[in-house]
Amino acid sequence: MRLSHYFLKTSKTVPDNDKIVSSKLLKQGDFIRESSAGRYYILPIGQKVQQKIMSIIKQEMDAAGCQEMVSPILHPLKLWQETNRTNTIGFELMRVKDRRNTEFVLGGTAEEMFVDLVRQYKLSYRDLPFNLYQFSPKFRDELRARGGLLRVREFIMKDAYSFHRNKEDFKIEYEKMKKVYTKIFKRLGLETYIVESDNGYIGGEYCHEFIVESKVGESKFFISESGKYAAHEDVALFKKEIKNKSEKPKQLIKVIAKRGPKMQDGVKLHKLPLWQQIKDVVFVDKKNRYILAIIRGDFDVNEVKLKNILKVTSLRHASNEEIKKDIQSEPGFISPVGIKDKLNKKTKLIIVADDSLRTVVNSYGGSNEKNKDLLNVNIDRDYKPDIEGDIALAKAGYQSIDNSGKLVEKQGIEVGNIFQLGYHYSSKMKGAVYVDADGKEKLLYMGCYGIGIGRTMAAIVEKHNDKKGIIWPKIVSPFQIHLIALNNVKDKADKLYEKLTKMKIDTLYDDRDKTAGEKFADADLIGIPIRIVISKKTLKQNAFEIKIRKELNTKLISCKRINSILKIV
Amino acid sequence: MRLSHYFLKTSKTVPDNDKIVSSKLLKQGDFIRESSAGRYYILPIGQKVQQKIMSIIKQEMDAAGCQEMVSPILHPLKLWQETNRTNTIGFELMRVKDRRNTEFVLGGTAEEMFVDLVRQYKLSYRDLPFNLYQFSPKFRDELRARGGLLRVREFIMKDAYSFHRNKEDFKIEYEKMKKVYTKIFKRLGLETYIVESDNGYIGGEYCHEFIVESKVGESKFFISESGKYAAHEDVALFKKEIKNKSEKPKQLIKVIAKRGPKMQDGVKLHKLPLWQQIKDVVFVDKKNRYILAIIRGDFDVNEVKLKNILKVTSLRHASNEEIKKDIQSEPGFISPVGIKDKLNKKTKLIIVADDSLRTVVNSYGGSNEKNKDLLNVNIDRDYKPDIEGDIALAKAGYQSIDNSGKLVEKQGIEVGNIFQLGYHYSSKMKGAVYVDADGKEKLLYMGCYGIGIGRTMAAIVEKHNDKKGIIWPKIVSPFQIHLIALNNVKDKADKLYEKLTKMKIDTLYDDRDKTAGEKFADADLIGIPIRIVISKKTLKQNAFEIKIRKELNTKLISCKRINSILKIV
Repeated sequence: MRLSHYFLKTSKTVPDNDKIVSSKLLKQGDFIRESSAGRYYILPIGQKVQQKIMSIIKQEMDAAGCQEMVSPILHPLKLWQETNRTNTIGFELMRVKDRRNTEFVLGGTAEEMFVDLVRQYKLSYRDLPFNLYQFSPKFRDELRARGGLLRVREFIMKDAYSFHRNKEDFKIEYEKMKKVYTKIFKRLGLETYIVESDNGYIGGEYCHEFIVESKVGESKFFISESGKYAAHEDVALFKKEIKNKSEKPKQLIKVIAKRGPKMQDGVKLHKLPLWQQIKDVVFVDKKNRYILAIIRGDFDVNEVKLKNILKVTSLRHASNEEIKKDIQSEPGFISPVGIKDKLNKKTKLIIVADDSLRTVVNSYGGSNEKNKDLLNVNIDRDYKPDIEGDIALAKAGYQSIDNSGKLVEKQGIEVGNIFQLGYHYSSKMKGAVYVDADGKEKLLYMGCYGIGIGRTMAAIVEKHNDKKGIIWPKIVSPFQIHLIALNNVKDKADKLYEKLTKMKIDTLYDDRDKTAGEKFADADLIGIPIRIVISKKTLKQNAFEIKIRKELNTKLISCKRINSILKIV
Repeated sequence: MRLSHYFLKTSKTVPDNDKIVSSKLLKQGDFIRESSAGRYYILPIGQKVQQKIMSIIKQEMDAAGCQEMVSPILHPLKLWQETNRTNTIGFELMRVKDRRNTEFVLGGTAEEMFVDLVRQYKLSYRDLPFNLYQFSPKFRDELRARGGLLRVREFIMKDAYSFHRNKEDFKIEYEKMKKVYTKIFKRLGLETYIVESDNGYIGGEYCHEFIVESKVGESKFFISESGKYAAHEDVALFKKEIKNKSEKPKQLIKVIAKRGPKMQDGVKLHKLPLWQQIKDVVFVDKKNRYILAIIRGDFDVNEVKLKNILKVTSLRHASNEEIKKDIQSEPGFISPVGIKDKLNKKTKLIIVADDSLRTVVNSYGGSNEKNKDLLNVNIDRDYKPDIEGDIALAKAGYQSIDNSGKLVEKQGIEVGNIFQLGYHYSSKMKGAVYVDADGKEKLLYMGCYGIGIGRTMAAIVEKHNDKKGIIWPKIVSPFQIHLIALNNVKDKADKLYEKLTKMKIDTLYDDRDKTAGEKFADADLIGIPIRIVISKKTLKQNAFEIKIRKELNTKLISCKRINSILKIV
């Protein structure tokens, strides 16, 4: 492609003074351009990269026996109502009505569409398993778009849906897809962590994110020192060491406690360790139920875990007014002890206790009265939680749950994810069954698997760049060679370009009327792995100059050797 | 691909008892399946065909110097307001709001998006021309979906947009795209007519449809006997032969005419030829203006031509009540003579005369009074049209405008179209300019070019089938070979399948537990060009049986010759 004819204009600056490297470089190199916020044109040179990424994904998905198809983009709303995702979904679903007032959803993921397809077939156990995938535009009405392609409102996703006879059969596919994804990302130049994470609005029991480590990523996760355990902050488990369990429970007493509302105020006043204090946090759910979450004083409440244990999709913090009026307690002095006796009649309160409260005896904390604290509070004896489990937030340095060392905090870009769905969809959508060997209809067991194409492109740029620009891995580079012609050697350069084209080497040929400096800067910015320069100087030696983008040195190569150029470099 | 593992189940019937062959066969062969009306899943075997079609299109577009990219699917509504297409568009645009209440359009075509992109670059004349294209989902809220993929509400379109310095430069591209399209369709097994047609909501001055002749198509068009002239019914021109022009104009007279309201009633009563009578048709536009369209009695009014000459997007017939009350005339006795003198004060009436009225003198017709006719009506002397031009509907047998013989009526499927847009968009969208050699900013001159992928697939099936099923042209066939294993030769068949796979021959292997009859019927239905059967019988002769889908005979080929199988057939 002759750059003089290519729809590509690099720029030295980006309009919004972008700080995120991939966003900046992709915009400066004219790979992408924003239309409305979070919705991008993928420009010709960007589209070449996007297609190469999709092609690698397709190769590996096909090799794993998956089958490509495509579903409509407008999903009948009634399907989403069957699974209740119109209510459970966190981000705003985009809806559209047709002229007959039928409502549709602009798909963010397509579980309902694939289940609705599959249930129209009278499937037998012999037809199982299968894994159907598509590359298709997805829509997420994100509150904030950010970082170029890192968080957008419209993007192409490779989404796959697998259907199985049972859990055991699904497990085989799930493990296979872990390997397939790892290989895909590796081929694309990305090392990924496979990280346990939260299912969120997708549903199901467990899932994993594929995360590329990066400071600009939005995913915070932990890995254990040995690397065996990896989990997203939302779900990470850790060991809660036993504290003073050998102590005898003492009598519950109420004491005057003129102190501030902070945890440290309690520590100072009573001269007792933080871990012995009870931390109380009050939330409100969508049904206006109050949730009192209690946890050992040295831990924090993990809201995702709390939501999951409560099976709710959103929570907010209660205000001080609500605590006083509805719960009849006192901010800073809340206690699970006796709290249910004082409630306003209409108030519904659920006490959720973290299991860390079983590692201490004789805890202390508020009394639901201002400036009065309780000492020697003990679970079961003094209060009874409605729900007990793990609602604790993991932190760096905590012991990994599997004894594989301390947790190390990481940050990264989620480029893919895989989900166990189990019976989550097939139990809600009538007819999502197969006929088993015993002649009985049984629910389909499902999984799903996604890769965001644009975000993957951004992740590649985040990992492969230097100060001057992008350094594309060969496999996704938009062109194989960047050919630059300098000062009045146009004829020779044209011939070389034609030769390379005949050799089916995809070449970007900078034949523009620009300075050497401008051409070199653009070549570095665009990031094609091999740069060839032809000039009067090189032609004197009957040679051209070659430079590998990621290396510093250039070398001269005899014009004769052009036929084996790809082998030389 | 082993059919036993493939997501494909053929069926003997189609649910809605489809009469359109392509719809029936594509559904029975499990290439497509309807989701909501007019929105289809393209199933794995259909997706293979769709991708092959897109790949051929891409090859030819790239070879012609066009550049692939992709624009967002959600178009900011404000862009469509700039061009006023929110008002001019015939079909209902689908609109969607995001959580911030910003409105978007689900694109049916993407002119505004590409102009909005291009105007952000400071283009110079040196950057021109260029042609940008994309494959992307398009949405049309059609009143009726029909015929499987023939008329749908959601489909993938290849849409291209070219930008030029001027008309002359555009013309070169337009003629080039005619050739490119012809070649694309020819490679896909489709002979196309290039037919002048109406621009409709796209705008611009002229355009051409690429039509595959077919009885199930919705496009009615004419070609002249010599084949030189081809035009859609909406725009077809023809020669209006001179009638009695040599006669002297006689005096206008009003006569009693107790007759019915039909044209033939006048002919009978006055014993004068039909062509001498004036045909009057009254329409109403969106602004409630009345339009009196008048034409020679032997012709009919072409509503598309009438709309274009009036520059309106929709018209409806006036009711008898409206004619009586607002126009103060009489249905069946309408006349242009003196009609404007009688109008209700608030009524606005525009008289549009077809130029055929210049081929006659001493016409006759109504008088705006019941049971009274006027004889010897002459244009200019007795009435003055506000607009005069061609508003006549062409019919088979009429003389082609270019003297290339009589018009022959044809029907077909519109698979592609190309449009001159000229300054239609650049004059409406501010900043759609380039800097010319003289340093001045000038408007971009544009064209656009579309191909519907699904409809092309349907057209291929319409042209390539027999009673038993589809007969795919090799180039778009989902697989190269359909391998069938019969009665207990599974081991040998498996080996043959593995051998073909190693040879990179894409094979659909029917390894299912079905009868020979069922397997043969499915092979014929699915329509892969080469069928290979391996059975006990063939193996006795150390051979396999080969059959070309479109031929009747089978032949035995020695197993040894498998290596050159694609050359043999």
